[in-house]
Amino acid sequence: MGVEERRQQLIGVALELFSRRSPDEVSIDEIAAAAGISRPLVYHYFPGKLSLYEAALKRASEDLASRFVEPQEGPLGSRLLRVMRRFFDFVDDHGPGFSALMRGGPAVGSSTTNALVDAVRQAAYDQILSHLRVTNPPARLELVVRSWISLAESTALIWLDGRRIPRGELEVQLVHDFAALAAVSATYDEEMAAVMRDIVKDEPGDGPFSDLVVRLVALAS
Amino acid sequence: MGVEERRQQLIGVALELFSRRSPDEVSIDEIAAAAGISRPLVYHYFPGKLSLYEAALKRASEDLASRFVEPQEGPLGSRLLRVMRRFFDFVDDHGPGFSALMRGGPAVGSSTTNALVDAVRQAAYDQILSHLRVTNPPARLELVVRSWISLAESTALIWLDGRRIPRGELEVQLVHDFAALAAVSATYDEEMAAVMRDIVKDEPGDGPFSDLVVRLVALAS
Repeated sequence: MGVEERRQQLIGVALELFSRRSPDEVSIDEIAAAAGISRPLVYHYFPGKLSLYEAALKRASEDLASRFVEPQEGPLGSRLLRVMRRFFDFVDDHGPGFSALMRGGPAVGSSTTNALVDAVRQAAYDQILSHLRVTNPPARLELVVRSWISLAESTALIWLDGRRIPRGELEVQLVHDFAALAAVSATYDEEMAAVMRDIVKDEPGDGPFSDLVVRLVALAS
Repeated sequence: MGVEERRQQLIGVALELFSRRSPDEVSIDEIAAAAGISRPLVYHYFPGKLSLYEAALKRASEDLASRFVEPQEGPLGSRLLRVMRRFFDFVDDHGPGFSALMRGGPAVGSSTTNALVDAVRQAAYDQILSHLRVTNPPARLELVVRSWISLAESTALIWLDGRRIPRGELEVQLVHDFAALAAVSATYDEEMAAVMRDIVKDEPGDGPFSDLVVRLVALAS
């Protein structure tokens, strides 16, 4: 194998191990064994576990960011629901590693890992604004979108801790949460109310946003 | 000054400095100067900057947790609003330090600081359950409460970044967000619907929860 090919193979092996167990618990020896090479050879490609972890995290974060990309067609609620399904697929595949990273253990916190996590959040934010066709977001819209992204992260983390709620339900719930947070904000601000009207105007009667309204009306009565 | 008194004074001086600027930028020399003692004497009481930072963070986190305590009387929405006011007072007083900590910079991340942050989150969670008079929370209630706590954190962080929305509005909005997220969850689950009915049954017509319903109805029409 060439140098770059070997590096890529090692990253893949490491990502697999870092995803399945907390990265704290994965040793270079294990990574070497899983890749079928010697421990010194691993160090030949990566100076230490942190640099291999960062390379694996970079691949995972690019993978996750790519799942946010969705054709800008059809009702917004259904687009967001498809992204939520792919987000939970990712979380499901990388559970222990995702938890360890997002809970900020000392072994995984570095300025590089923080920058990678921030880049994924920014990718999510940019995608949502682009679907809303907003280029200069008012402060309240930025707040709703960014704080909802943190809500999605914490919902995924809580789900991983015991998986006591079916993930399919949480995927829909996060779409509804987005609509609910945007609606709350729209009650304060005309600019947000205009964004909200834009969100709902193309929603079909059987889309996730309409479904929420029907459910809320049923709950209130 | 006695040893413990001097330690407490140093913690107070350090907390003040760590709150006003990112802890990364605060030097032991500055802390010594602000306390009116020599640099070696600081090291006599604290082995290094991290241990002084952790002691300051411990005091700040106990301060914050104490602000969550609210008499269990009167409408729930108004109780939560008073807590939100005290939460934003705290965030306002400790802005740069709060941001640096919650954004997880490498200089402030340690297992001790993570444990202190988690303890504050747990204190918030325990207070909310106790006001809801729930001792064995169903999984969906735990999810709503814990994910709303992370929403409150991210709302405060986004507010600190430019303060483009009046904090008084965000304090009310977070109370409304809680009701909205609980309502969404209640549309899926009978247990959550029962909790929701309990929340709203003692709400007066001019409380924050009723206010939200009035606003949402106005928005929808």
